[in-house]
Amino acid sequence: MKRSGTPIFLFLLFFSLNLKAQKFEKLIQYVNPLIGTEKMGHTYPGATAPFGAVQLSPETDTISYEMNGKYNGEVYKYCAGYRYEDRTIVGFSSTHFSGTGHSDLGDFLVMPTVGKLQLNPGTATNPESGYRSRFSHQNEKAEAGYYKVKLDDSNILAELTATTRVGVHRYTFPKSDQAHIILDLMAGIYNYDGKNVWTYVRVENGNTITGYRQTNGWARTRTVYFAMKFSKSFKSYGQKNYDGKQVYNGFWRKFDQTKNFPEIAGKNLKMYFDFDTNENEAIEVKLAISPVSQANALENLEKEAGNLSFDQVKMQTQENWNKELNKIVVKGSEIEKTNFYTAMYHTFINPTTYTDVNGEYKGLDQNIHKAEDFTNYTTFSIWDTYRALHPFFNIIQPKRNGDMVKSMMAHYNQFSMKMLPIWSHYANDNWCMSGYHSVSVVADAIIKGNYQGDAKEALKACVETANKRDYEGIGQYIDLGYIPAEKNGTSVSNTLEYAYDDWAIAQLAKHLGETEIYNQFIKRSENWKNNFDKNIGFMRPRLADGSFKKDFNALSTHGQGFIEGNSWNYSFFVPQNPDELIKLMGGKKKFASKLDELFTMHLPDEFFADTEDITREGIIGGYVHGNEPAHHVAYLYNWAGQPWKTQAQIRRILEMQYKATPDGLGGNDDAGQMSAWYILSSLGFYPVAPGSEDYAIGSPAIDHAVLNLENGKTFEIEAINQSPKNVYVEKIILNGKEIKNFTLKHSDITNGGKLSFYMSAKSKK
Amino acid sequence: MKRSGTPIFLFLLFFSLNLKAQKFEKLIQYVNPLIGTEKMGHTYPGATAPFGAVQLSPETDTISYEMNGKYNGEVYKYCAGYRYEDRTIVGFSSTHFSGTGHSDLGDFLVMPTVGKLQLNPGTATNPESGYRSRFSHQNEKAEAGYYKVKLDDSNILAELTATTRVGVHRYTFPKSDQAHIILDLMAGIYNYDGKNVWTYVRVENGNTITGYRQTNGWARTRTVYFAMKFSKSFKSYGQKNYDGKQVYNGFWRKFDQTKNFPEIAGKNLKMYFDFDTNENEAIEVKLAISPVSQANALENLEKEAGNLSFDQVKMQTQENWNKELNKIVVKGSEIEKTNFYTAMYHTFINPTTYTDVNGEYKGLDQNIHKAEDFTNYTTFSIWDTYRALHPFFNIIQPKRNGDMVKSMMAHYNQFSMKMLPIWSHYANDNWCMSGYHSVSVVADAIIKGNYQGDAKEALKACVETANKRDYEGIGQYIDLGYIPAEKNGTSVSNTLEYAYDDWAIAQLAKHLGETEIYNQFIKRSENWKNNFDKNIGFMRPRLADGSFKKDFNALSTHGQGFIEGNSWNYSFFVPQNPDELIKLMGGKKKFASKLDELFTMHLPDEFFADTEDITREGIIGGYVHGNEPAHHVAYLYNWAGQPWKTQAQIRRILEMQYKATPDGLGGNDDAGQMSAWYILSSLGFYPVAPGSEDYAIGSPAIDHAVLNLENGKTFEIEAINQSPKNVYVEKIILNGKEIKNFTLKHSDITNGGKLSFYMSAKSKK
Repeated sequence: MKRSGTPIFLFLLFFSLNLKAQKFEKLIQYVNPLIGTEKMGHTYPGATAPFGAVQLSPETDTISYEMNGKYNGEVYKYCAGYRYEDRTIVGFSSTHFSGTGHSDLGDFLVMPTVGKLQLNPGTATNPESGYRSRFSHQNEKAEAGYYKVKLDDSNILAELTATTRVGVHRYTFPKSDQAHIILDLMAGIYNYDGKNVWTYVRVENGNTITGYRQTNGWARTRTVYFAMKFSKSFKSYGQKNYDGKQVYNGFWRKFDQTKNFPEIAGKNLKMYFDFDTNENEAIEVKLAISPVSQANALENLEKEAGNLSFDQVKMQTQENWNKELNKIVVKGSEIEKTNFYTAMYHTFINPTTYTDVNGEYKGLDQNIHKAEDFTNYTTFSIWDTYRALHPFFNIIQPKRNGDMVKSMMAHYNQFSMKMLPIWSHYANDNWCMSGYHSVSVVADAIIKGNYQGDAKEALKACVETANKRDYEGIGQYIDLGYIPAEKNGTSVSNTLEYAYDDWAIAQLAKHLGETEIYNQFIKRSENWKNNFDKNIGFMRPRLADGSFKKDFNALSTHGQGFIEGNSWNYSFFVPQNPDELIKLMGGKKKFASKLDELFTMHLPDEFFADTEDITREGIIGGYVHGNEPAHHVAYLYNWAGQPWKTQAQIRRILEMQYKATPDGLGGNDDAGQMSAWYILSSLGFYPVAPGSEDYAIGSPAIDHAVLNLENGKTFEIEAINQSPKNVYVEKIILNGKEIKNFTLKHSDITNGGKLSFYMSAKSKK
Repeated sequence: MKRSGTPIFLFLLFFSLNLKAQKFEKLIQYVNPLIGTEKMGHTYPGATAPFGAVQLSPETDTISYEMNGKYNGEVYKYCAGYRYEDRTIVGFSSTHFSGTGHSDLGDFLVMPTVGKLQLNPGTATNPESGYRSRFSHQNEKAEAGYYKVKLDDSNILAELTATTRVGVHRYTFPKSDQAHIILDLMAGIYNYDGKNVWTYVRVENGNTITGYRQTNGWARTRTVYFAMKFSKSFKSYGQKNYDGKQVYNGFWRKFDQTKNFPEIAGKNLKMYFDFDTNENEAIEVKLAISPVSQANALENLEKEAGNLSFDQVKMQTQENWNKELNKIVVKGSEIEKTNFYTAMYHTFINPTTYTDVNGEYKGLDQNIHKAEDFTNYTTFSIWDTYRALHPFFNIIQPKRNGDMVKSMMAHYNQFSMKMLPIWSHYANDNWCMSGYHSVSVVADAIIKGNYQGDAKEALKACVETANKRDYEGIGQYIDLGYIPAEKNGTSVSNTLEYAYDDWAIAQLAKHLGETEIYNQFIKRSENWKNNFDKNIGFMRPRLADGSFKKDFNALSTHGQGFIEGNSWNYSFFVPQNPDELIKLMGGKKKFASKLDELFTMHLPDEFFADTEDITREGIIGGYVHGNEPAHHVAYLYNWAGQPWKTQAQIRRILEMQYKATPDGLGGNDDAGQMSAWYILSSLGFYPVAPGSEDYAIGSPAIDHAVLNLENGKTFEIEAINQSPKNVYVEKIILNGKEIKNFTLKHSDITNGGKLSFYMSAKSKK
């Protein structure tokens, strides 16, 4: 088009923007946030904006981490606060993890009630004993960015929506002169007596309060500030302090702090706000959070939601979700779309935004920093997400993924230990799981051109992290090439993971022309061989004297040197060099048979019990999909010369492990990793070794997909004749040229174009 | 002088500045910080800069607020951390109150040791059981801005100095390969189990650490950040966490955090740093504090002391002290000068600076604020200091006093309760004592022209504070004109204090032409009459029904409606209207006789026990000088027509209540109030009713004084023939004109000039 003068140009621009807006399909209709809320999925059904700092969602119980002085296993079920199986709701809190296998958060539990004020949640079996209420799934609706539920006991309709940093509650009350909104500052997820280090509340005026909650939990030192604004002034308010006997309570005792007193502080506080309500009167509560200060929380509230009603916030956030979901437009059945877009939704929840609207955030050095040219993120469950989630972002969210690497670099720079994050959690490393997989995320993003920062500095951070001799056996790993089993309970999985990570560092070094570092780390990346026992064909713990551990059982995880996977699964964990692994395992045929055995064996119950975080449905034969270590394994048939088995197994996993029901996920969604696996695999390819530009081709489970890339290009995928029976790939054509090696390159996608799969019911063996 | 061109002008300016510098007398030689450290003075001997944020001083024991589950009276003795009576030192901490009767602080206790590491302080009777050391006063020296002591058990010489925000320690060690510097984060003043809400330490590098201590004490919610820099890198370091069993300790348990681990957090931590030392090797430790952040603490450290050695800091701070002390140059005996300049020193310690070098501070709203055009101060013990300390500042530190009013206004603006401070303590009100005497400080500063802010806004803050109906009986006071004794344990003293405060508000309103407010508050200022029982001639508690309390005893404080004073003392508390009080008490003669009785009576032991905070030496007859309510009383003889008795009593109080010895103060110095009384009274005048421009003339105890005022003028005072016997004032000449009414005006001082007293041994009755 030739530019024909400004006015017409502008008109056309407007028209095209408008067209673009209209072009978005209404994809949020396929998102069902209830998927994964039952059994082991650990997702939450509440409202969040894409990568939002606030995750406003119901809690269905208040299980304590400790019961009678001992660890209470029940707490594990409540990682996300909500369990589909439950019949009561205790309230709606502002922060939740999605799909994790350990937890924290649940800050600022809010609950509306009517009638006699009750400040305790009560019990599930006797909801009348507290402020909780029964509810039923008939009266519940969960959408991307919106949740509603009828609270049966109080006849209150509760609705939730959220901007990035502000949760918006709307409670529609019956007529009452005893309507209350409770703010329970003692509540929390993975809570226990002593977890609250300090809480503080300040009533700013008749409808605004601010404060903070400081906790010592999975994040050792964490403070979340809040600002809370009611659409209607409360007629009165009060608090109860459950701190019990205090050694010293100073001269604040001059005051009656229980009623209409504007400033309270302590460890165990509950507040309530009283209202008179008319029939069907709705009270909206905006609750903004900040990692920095109450002032920032107020600013977040005003800037993001100050002038917006509940309905406006909901519309805006759902538009944002729709925009994000439209980054991939697929054709398929309703159920396929539901699975696909719910997976998209789950991948766009974590990592979460960790900057205020003014760019400020609290760093690991406990100081306030300003993110000048990026959005800072937290909630990096990297052991899970380096595998498929971040690679997926490198395709579909490259700008955000670059910022995530910047966030990791900020973590590294601000951290006393000068390490890239293991599990970044609100200006803490909570040290969950193993490896130093940030280096994979960093390398993959840089190699794929998605990092705008100083790449050499990033490489330096990777190298420094990989050389922390005191961390989880790294020193021994460096000295011996493996970690003696006597020294470390997860000696084998650590060695395997380090070796892959080292390979990723080597790739980055090569990319940056740092030959010396490349040589050093490519050598380290072969260390996996040191734990491979050729005699039995399995990865096996090795002692300091070099001998392999006696009493070894490849089916068991417990005490065998692995974490979240037995040797049967971990023995395939050489994503950086399947060819060499195949050689050591006796060649392609033997290797493929071994894979067959993995997928068909029966894992006895005694060994299943070892495998954390999953239901019995989370495994196929001995292959554990509900945990991550084997996520690449089905693709290894490609290397063994039997790609049709990759195709068949991928389709089997997609079908068996992901269902469009609350109990549809066989294991924790793990901050989006399981969902990212689903998306990529159903598009037909998977990043077996992030840090490589190659994707292994599997079997697409969608009929058609268009990837709308940030660079303005589109990548179209069609799977001709695809069906539940036609799972085998007959031919693959990329922009008119056939792909024969079952490998797609990252640049094939980013350059735009068309990938056509010709599917068949017959394998091409 | 006629200006004769720039170069010569500049030369002359330089010359005159130089002259001015030379002009300073070496007055710090007369400061003895040990005065008041024994018995009830509650001063500390350590190093501080004028109005410094850091008060670096030794602790001689670690007494807990609670012992065996009960309040431990011993803790009271350790308000300032140090007791002259003690024989061991446990360490040197960064923050101390000067002269208070309740306490807190003692942050960041540092102790050098040699030999086997011991992390417990041990006991006074068995110092070997811990890190404490014996010391003797022979090996101790305290100066303004400098303190040194030999630690006998370890043979370490400890020296302390400080800038405004940085404490500098210098420890001269013997030769040792086991030298340690301990940082005890569990130590504190008025400490108890649970007072530490959270502590955090981060080892930045081989010689720098940062962190914070968050406490719940007299200040309910308080966090002090620190940065600590050693002049020599430690060879190793470690920590011990005394938190005991933790419900949850997360994945930090992966690490051995006890040794050379750079980031620790918990409630009960002790750290140590190890060195090899040569004979007489000195290690300097700079420890900066900040109310805002570790980054600010580091900035404070670098900006104030980064490039300075211990000796340079000491020289600079002592020069600053000398400059401050030279604001009044007196002639007198050594002892008189010691008393006088030690009093000056004690008045220039509090309030303390509460802004970082970058102007930031944490406000009562928990947010970070920037003091754009003033220094923000905290540590306002206003019930004490409104009487003489702030009036003294209006003469000799007008700029600072204006900033103190700005600090009070910031407190008011940032506080949820919208009140001027009662006792401002590190972004908290600790609510200690009674009245709303900030209004007196505000009114006095504005009336005397020392406030650069918005005076009408300040008046509004005063009025709002005085109308907080829920605070300590104010509502009843407003409604009934007195506080019913059934409702409030200090009903009479509250009413009397409110009445004076109301008068101060009225004066400010008059000054600003706010007639309506004037009328309202001048009326309220007469409420003292409602507690005056004409039948007995005493202030007396009154019940809700209007009747006076039965079983009344004017000698007792306990249960009689007063605080820190019995009716005998408080009945004279109408500083705003002595004439009216005299009338009600039966005329001048009867009034004077009653004063005579007060000064000559014997206060039986049973009633003395009621009187808090003082030694038996703190009273003269029944007159309690060790507490504040009667501080103006000796001057009331002037109103009764017997000024010679004022003169005699003032000299008696000066002589009996202030001695140049560690036990020289008869009561708490009370953040400088006792010392300010000394200075003003020994100069010959006193502000009986702050808010008035008038000073009552007493009897000067110095021979000669020059007040070097900030406006560039000087006010000279001479007391001709003054001696311990010549205490009576024969004649007073101000700038050649005789003063006959025993009243000096504030403007008489600020206009500069000369005041001559002609003294005699014979009274002029």
